[in-house]
Amino acid sequence: MTILPDVLAAFTAIVGAAHVRTDADSLLAYGTDALKRGAPADIAVLPADTAQVAAIVRFCAKHRITMVPRGAGTGYTGGAVPIRGGVVISLERMNRILEIDESNLVAVVQPHVITGDLQDAVEKLGLYYPPDPASLRRSTIGGNVAECAGGPRAFKYGTTKRYVLGLEAVLPTGEVIHTGGKTVKNVVGYDLTQLLVGSEGTLAITTAIILRLIPKPPAYATLRATFPSVAAAADAVSNIVRLRVVPAALELIDGDSLEAVARNLNDRSLAPEGTAALLLIEVDGVAQAIAEESTLVEQACAEAGAIEVLRARDEHERQELWRVRRELSLSLKMVASLKYNHDVVVPKGRIPELFALVARIKEEYRLRIPCFGHAGDGNIHVNLMVDADDAEEIARAHVAENVLFAGVVALEGSISGEHGIGFSKAPFLTLELSEEEIALMKRVKRAFDPDGILNPGKIFP
Amino acid sequence: MTILPDVLAAFTAIVGAAHVRTDADSLLAYGTDALKRGAPADIAVLPADTAQVAAIVRFCAKHRITMVPRGAGTGYTGGAVPIRGGVVISLERMNRILEIDESNLVAVVQPHVITGDLQDAVEKLGLYYPPDPASLRRSTIGGNVAECAGGPRAFKYGTTKRYVLGLEAVLPTGEVIHTGGKTVKNVVGYDLTQLLVGSEGTLAITTAIILRLIPKPPAYATLRATFPSVAAAADAVSNIVRLRVVPAALELIDGDSLEAVARNLNDRSLAPEGTAALLLIEVDGVAQAIAEESTLVEQACAEAGAIEVLRARDEHERQELWRVRRELSLSLKMVASLKYNHDVVVPKGRIPELFALVARIKEEYRLRIPCFGHAGDGNIHVNLMVDADDAEEIARAHVAENVLFAGVVALEGSISGEHGIGFSKAPFLTLELSEEEIALMKRVKRAFDPDGILNPGKIFP
Repeated sequence: MTILPDVLAAFTAIVGAAHVRTDADSLLAYGTDALKRGAPADIAVLPADTAQVAAIVRFCAKHRITMVPRGAGTGYTGGAVPIRGGVVISLERMNRILEIDESNLVAVVQPHVITGDLQDAVEKLGLYYPPDPASLRRSTIGGNVAECAGGPRAFKYGTTKRYVLGLEAVLPTGEVIHTGGKTVKNVVGYDLTQLLVGSEGTLAITTAIILRLIPKPPAYATLRATFPSVAAAADAVSNIVRLRVVPAALELIDGDSLEAVARNLNDRSLAPEGTAALLLIEVDGVAQAIAEESTLVEQACAEAGAIEVLRARDEHERQELWRVRRELSLSLKMVASLKYNHDVVVPKGRIPELFALVARIKEEYRLRIPCFGHAGDGNIHVNLMVDADDAEEIARAHVAENVLFAGVVALEGSISGEHGIGFSKAPFLTLELSEEEIALMKRVKRAFDPDGILNPGKIFP
Repeated sequence: MTILPDVLAAFTAIVGAAHVRTDADSLLAYGTDALKRGAPADIAVLPADTAQVAAIVRFCAKHRITMVPRGAGTGYTGGAVPIRGGVVISLERMNRILEIDESNLVAVVQPHVITGDLQDAVEKLGLYYPPDPASLRRSTIGGNVAECAGGPRAFKYGTTKRYVLGLEAVLPTGEVIHTGGKTVKNVVGYDLTQLLVGSEGTLAITTAIILRLIPKPPAYATLRATFPSVAAAADAVSNIVRLRVVPAALELIDGDSLEAVARNLNDRSLAPEGTAALLLIEVDGVAQAIAEESTLVEQACAEAGAIEVLRARDEHERQELWRVRRELSLSLKMVASLKYNHDVVVPKGRIPELFALVARIKEEYRLRIPCFGHAGDGNIHVNLMVDADDAEEIARAHVAENVLFAGVVALEGSISGEHGIGFSKAPFLTLELSEEEIALMKRVKRAFDPDGILNPGKIFP
């Protein structure tokens, strides 16, 4: 698209000249996210409120101009970036917490509220917003809603969708709709709220979000258990489930990931010798309950053949136990210059089969594949590490991706538990969904966006 | 529709003669539900499996014959009955629990499994399926999914939608689709699972359901508090929320409802004199936690001016405390011959305003309106009691319904928290949804059902 003067004039009239970007640096910045691929925006516009979003969308709809809604740009699959130009509608100015309604356990926020900021605000009141994607200090509630963000706490508390009660959104045709509301129960018409959550900005642009809050758990306990094999760690997870304990976090880190952290920190004392898998376990609730649950967790790990089980005695020790997990992302960057970070998910009972699959792929395709993730959900981040200047290794990795995804689907799993499809995973959609299912989703897309102008090229192959 | 010989022949070929109904009694039975309105079916067909459902649907789609899927017929809004004839597809033979997967905390069931039977089966294994509509001994999981059933436990545990991980369903065009799966996390494509939950059998026919289970809470405590006014009871609810206690059940019964039970049982000792509202409260979890929470609940009720607070010391006393709640439905039938039972919902902080609205309606329209319901969710059953042979009172009640629904929407509430719209509430849809929202939902309907042959005349005015 060449930006015609009348487009610039129209947007300037709606949001003011200070909130329209046309310089090359900005257009590049608004054309990339954490995936680091995508095309520059033709123009970026920063509305201040719902009325301005609606006015921009009506103008674009009238002239059939492509639009891409954007939050903080922390996504891993290119969901918030243009593929072939168009208007980027950045919601960064709509960043206010509108209401924390303590009597109804509800918060109303604009889309660009940083997730961690909302958590801080509600926790001061003894309330809790559980979803905790790793990006929570940078990503936004609007982005979390678009992608249905998860995180470690999802095993106990569920992902973003479980907390979204209602939405205000602008349809690609320009109408403002309100879905759901402040009540948990509402069965009037179709549940458009839940349909919009996870729709990756392809159905509507969210302008306000009503979130359910829960009381903040009064206490927690943190444990770390080390194992001689991933299979033993998986056995511990099974034992924990069998003992009917639901930890708030149940994070698994494999030996290759531990090795990466150990090298990066130059610290060989992170885990006992012979550790091939580490579990980080956090239980929360009332103090008496977590004491009992901690003991059950220790028992579950010991029965699975744990090398060592530690329980943090204070906040300092807790932070020490979490240190390996926190250092993971940065440490993996030292392993190789490129990371194909896949968030596959399998039923948690099939985690050993997933790791067996990864072991076969490692060997057959001669790849480094450190894995870690949310064992309680069966949601494992499988990181194919390759050197950016080794074209042959990159080619092997792309073949391996296909084998991984097909294998995950065969294990009753899904190719994405957290990151969404965006454009980078669109070619793999047919591995998981049938032709009929994709056709149906495309018809749903058309019900919202008859001209296909909102975030085109995403999700569908 | 006149049933042509070739329709009968086609269905007989698919399911066998023993599973096709054409006799007048059956057609009447399959043409009514708990609402006691609707039109007789032209023919009823009882498939044994998904393949038979798909074959029936393909035949109907080819000949543009209207279909109505049906579970146990316990719905209150006519969702499962024909309005102008057609084929009733009764799923009553698809009544098996296919799998209880303990390691993944998942159950897979056919649609006609009775909700209470599934609960019994999983509780034997120490697991729990929380949704507990009052009809749970008669209604089915498939029906619960179609209506997104709630119940007393929804305040703590959420409604049916929170437990549905995946579906197998037959589209009105005959294709079999699979949505979601056995994993809690899955962000591949649009969340059709959640769109289908609560869609009242208008988008697809569910043939299998994957449900999330949780560990069974090991203990519970039951309390009953009586109050001199509904406002005082509502204050107690607010206090409970302020103390960050989330009871599994928080049921409110008003004075008129208590009076109905007292008369029906001829027992004046059900509640202390001067009781205008009663709260039934149940907390669950580990034993130590519920002891603490019970004390907080007692404190919350006392501070709100409770007349009396009782805590059950054993199962016998617990059953005694629940007796009033259980006797409610039958007792209201003695008040008048017709009950217009509305399941409105408001943000729980606005319950006093809802009761003030009902008080005004009682006076202005000279109606008996006993109310009870799920105070934690703000979901109150407002029962307009009228005599079937008093046309003038019936007319007043219909005017009052409109005032009630409009008032509930003005209180940021919803006209239905549990029962759905069916055909009986369709005329009121425009009170809550805008023209644009309804138009969008109709486009979604067309994306699934281009010919409008699946359960027509439901939801939309």
